[in-house]
Amino acid sequence: MAAGKGCCNALGRCIFEYETPKVLVIQNKTVGIINRLIQASIVGYVIGYVCVIQQGYQDTDSVISSVTTKVKGNALANIPDLGVQAWDVVDYIIPPQAQNSFFLLTNLIVTQNQTQSTCAELPSPSTICTSDSNCTAGFSNVHGNDAEEFTVLIKNSIQYPKFNFNKRNILPHINSSYLKGCIFHRQTDPDCPIFRLKDIVVGANEDFQAMAVYGGVIGILIDWSCDLDMSENKCVPKYSFRRLDNKSPNNNVARGYNFRFAKYYKDCDDMDQRTLIKGYGIRFDVIVFGQAGKFNLVPTLVNIGAGMSFLSLVNAVCDWVALTFLKKRNYYSKHKYIHLDENDDTEETMYGTQ
Amino acid sequence: MAAGKGCCNALGRCIFEYETPKVLVIQNKTVGIINRLIQASIVGYVIGYVCVIQQGYQDTDSVISSVTTKVKGNALANIPDLGVQAWDVVDYIIPPQAQNSFFLLTNLIVTQNQTQSTCAELPSPSTICTSDSNCTAGFSNVHGNDAEEFTVLIKNSIQYPKFNFNKRNILPHINSSYLKGCIFHRQTDPDCPIFRLKDIVVGANEDFQAMAVYGGVIGILIDWSCDLDMSENKCVPKYSFRRLDNKSPNNNVARGYNFRFAKYYKDCDDMDQRTLIKGYGIRFDVIVFGQAGKFNLVPTLVNIGAGMSFLSLVNAVCDWVALTFLKKRNYYSKHKYIHLDENDDTEETMYGTQ
Amino acid sequence: MAAGKGCCNALGRCIFEYETPKVLVIQNKTVGIINRLIQASIVGYVIGYVCVIQQGYQDTDSVISSVTTKVKGNALANIPDLGVQAWDVVDYIIPPQAQNSFFLLTNLIVTQNQTQSTCAELPSPSTICTSDSNCTAGFSNVHGNDAEEFTVLIKNSIQYPKFNFNKRNILPHINSSYLKGCIFHRQTDPDCPIFRLKDIVVGANEDFQAMAVYGGVIGILIDWSCDLDMSENKCVPKYSFRRLDNKSPNNNVARGYNFRFAKYYKDCDDMDQRTLIKGYGIRFDVIVFGQAGKFNLVPTLVNIGAGMSFLSLVNAVCDWVALTFLKKRNYYSKHKYIHLDENDDTEETMYGTQ
Repeated sequence: MAAGKGCCNALGRCIFEYETPKVLVIQNKTVGIINRLIQASIVGYVIGYVCVIQQGYQDTDSVISSVTTKVKGNALANIPDLGVQAWDVVDYIIPPQAQNSFFLLTNLIVTQNQTQSTCAELPSPSTICTSDSNCTAGFSNVHGNDAEEFTVLIKNSIQYPKFNFNKRNILPHINSSYLKGCIFHRQTDPDCPIFRLKDIVVGANEDFQAMAVYGGVIGILIDWSCDLDMSENKCVPKYSFRRLDNKSPNNNVARGYNFRFAKYYKDCDDMDQRTLIKGYGIRFDVIVFGQAGKFNLVPTLVNIGAGMSFLSLVNAVCDWVALTFLKKRNYYSKHKYIHLDENDDTEETMYGTQ
Repeated sequence: MAAGKGCCNALGRCIFEYETPKVLVIQNKTVGIINRLIQASIVGYVIGYVCVIQQGYQDTDSVISSVTTKVKGNALANIPDLGVQAWDVVDYIIPPQAQNSFFLLTNLIVTQNQTQSTCAELPSPSTICTSDSNCTAGFSNVHGNDAEEFTVLIKNSIQYPKFNFNKRNILPHINSSYLKGCIFHRQTDPDCPIFRLKDIVVGANEDFQAMAVYGGVIGILIDWSCDLDMSENKCVPKYSFRRLDNKSPNNNVARGYNFRFAKYYKDCDDMDQRTLIKGYGIRFDVIVFGQAGKFNLVPTLVNIGAGMSFLSLVNAVCDWVALTFLKKRNYYSKHKYIHLDENDDTEETMYGTQ
Repeated sequence: MAAGKGCCNALGRCIFEYETPKVLVIQNKTVGIINRLIQASIVGYVIGYVCVIQQGYQDTDSVISSVTTKVKGNALANIPDLGVQAWDVVDYIIPPQAQNSFFLLTNLIVTQNQTQSTCAELPSPSTICTSDSNCTAGFSNVHGNDAEEFTVLIKNSIQYPKFNFNKRNILPHINSSYLKGCIFHRQTDPDCPIFRLKDIVVGANEDFQAMAVYGGVIGILIDWSCDLDMSENKCVPKYSFRRLDNKSPNNNVARGYNFRFAKYYKDCDDMDQRTLIKGYGIRFDVIVFGQAGKFNLVPTLVNIGAGMSFLSLVNAVCDWVALTFLKKRNYYSKHKYIHLDENDDTEETMYGTQ
């Protein structure tokens, strides 16, 4: 009963009382200005740097993407043992159905009429020389300067699932007549999704002719970094090109890019045969990346809150200044501190004894 | 020596003394309640919103994934110049070994017996007309209604490396007898990894027949977002379907999806020949995404700490209320503030002079 | 005018005055030590755990990557109806141009001379038996022990766009002579990008022979987690291997890995024919992941700030101790608190009445 009453009092006091620190107001320009300056700089940092520059008020999500590529073009190829041939995309581009990566055949070695029972580059004296002779003989630069003019249409559909945001690199304002004619150009046509292969290679600071011989890998990087608090129209892909494979001379065993493939058929004796082709060329990888940011309460308050907690440092600094450097430091500390001595039960200040 | 002694004293004082602010207890219901309300709302925000809703106590990781797809089904195809043919998956699905993307051939244009020396769609009058005639002639809708019944088995293995967590979309409770028969259905069979192609297209709000003519790209999105603080059984994939390619009429040059490929062979005169096929169809992209969260001390304390620092604002607000609006504001501020004047060395309060 | 003057005074006071709390200094070892201990532990947590262990001072970015793989090796295959054949990579590896995934053919079923007009595994009595007989007959383990010795060269180029950081798994110190000879070994050659397929399977704790029969999927995981505040040389890929497909016996319908593909040709009557091959084998997926961290001011200050705000808890704890447990608690609280009563206008302390 009494306990209950005491408990009620405690609760009442807890709710109906308000505790506020007793403060000392020091009328001193120096420390007053220092105080405001530090406070201003902290607030300035939180608002200016964290929120505006680093956009700490945003939640972020990573892009998910789907890519389709389609290459167009024709060329003439002069292949030893086969003579001049007309080649088109179907022959040049492998695999025909390119997704986020396609390969441009620029150079090949043909080894004809291999039957699997005899010569498949087995390490036996006979076959080695055979294949060797074939290979060295068949070496030929298919189209050093034909295929540069090839163009590729890149269709890229991206999504930021967290923000339920979808977009394509074929922007809404692009119409079909423009798409039929345009070629990507950083200044004049930055939104055109059709790229001349030569431009891509040049954009990666490489020489097409040089790459055509031994092949290589070039990345078509599509950056979808977006600030979704801005207008949706401002969220557009940024294209850049970079050589991805190693071309340093000191470990050139891994240089270039090539692979073997075969065309299979049967001769009239119904024997399985194949034409083995070692293809050199340039592989183009479409690499999509990016992060989108959108306002979210939690990161905002976390950044502001963390910044504010630095305000508690201001007092420490200013007290230190006021009680160490100011002329009247003793006068200040005499009023700031009340020393309660362990041994004595009566209030006394260290300075009171002076 | 003396300095050392003084240093020791300072250190001793620093360790054995405890500084606590002298506080004023204002017994006023208004400000007392305001004080508690603001405090409660801040604590409520940190606990309720940050921790419970936004799960700010969790560290996150992005999914890495590997996908295998296998399509099953048969159909009859009526191809001009070739007559009725029985087609199966090998003919329909390109490439045969589908990984995270497979292509369903729904429509094709056949150009037969091309020898690379003559017609490869070179821009010369003769060949143009040739290929044109072939192409227009060979147009045929292979299986508008056959292949809808095709099914695809999607095997998806994911990993959250940061949490060393692995899982497959073929859930542990799924047994082989169920897998043999089941077809994915959002309500009845949400865990079955076998999808009827028609259901996928319908799920993306598209018409199979319409897409079959010009082709298109459909995304099979697998969302692996998981709360790893919950039971592992709760971490299951969520499937959704969406059309990825552009179908807006105003830029239909990039409409649909098709590509050319060739079947190579030699005729009996040992001449290289090929059958050129322009294939229209639907490409299905399996896109896996998701983020997993798991308890981690750092984000937890960062969120709580940042939230707590807002508690320092409570005093500012309540002081402002108490010293501005309350009837006895002068009485309060007289006791709260002690003004130390720059010029005077004796304590006096601004109000003491009143 | 007067208002303006008052306003100026207020502003002047706001700038030139400094408010600091009046503090009570309690000279008591117990509470003094408690005070310092808690402070030290908080500072220790922020510096030690958040900054050093969890590297909370870093901004992070996710890797983007491009992979090229090239398999080398030869083997002898004994295929029913075809006899012993020499097979090389072109026959074994599908597709020939492997990107981040390649398939090793270890087992196959050959169905010869199918004409699409007759037998394409249509569900009709005649064809079913045909294909069945073919299929069962053609079953053969191509190279249980041949192809283990195959090696794969993995070229991986990665990028951390946020930090503009590029690197390849062929590290600068690797020269061509080393690359020609080396085979990856966790202890002796951890930097060699050439892997023996057998080692990969063993590294995934699997038996090559067992997998060769029904096939499977194995992941080659490349972890590029890097601390970019350290030397760039310390940022090297870490390789690991793991079986990705399901091998649990209770749902073995989805067991293993296989797919059908066909070799197309024409017979001399110019009839389209194909050899249908059901290939079993091991698919190797190269999965690249990782996160890079680099110093950034914002996360640093957020972590420190959030940590600091816990310092405000120290006072609460120590006051509680001092005013509850210490012998002289009444003496302390008498000096700490000044109670302003709602009803009275003269200062009085709760204890003053005692």
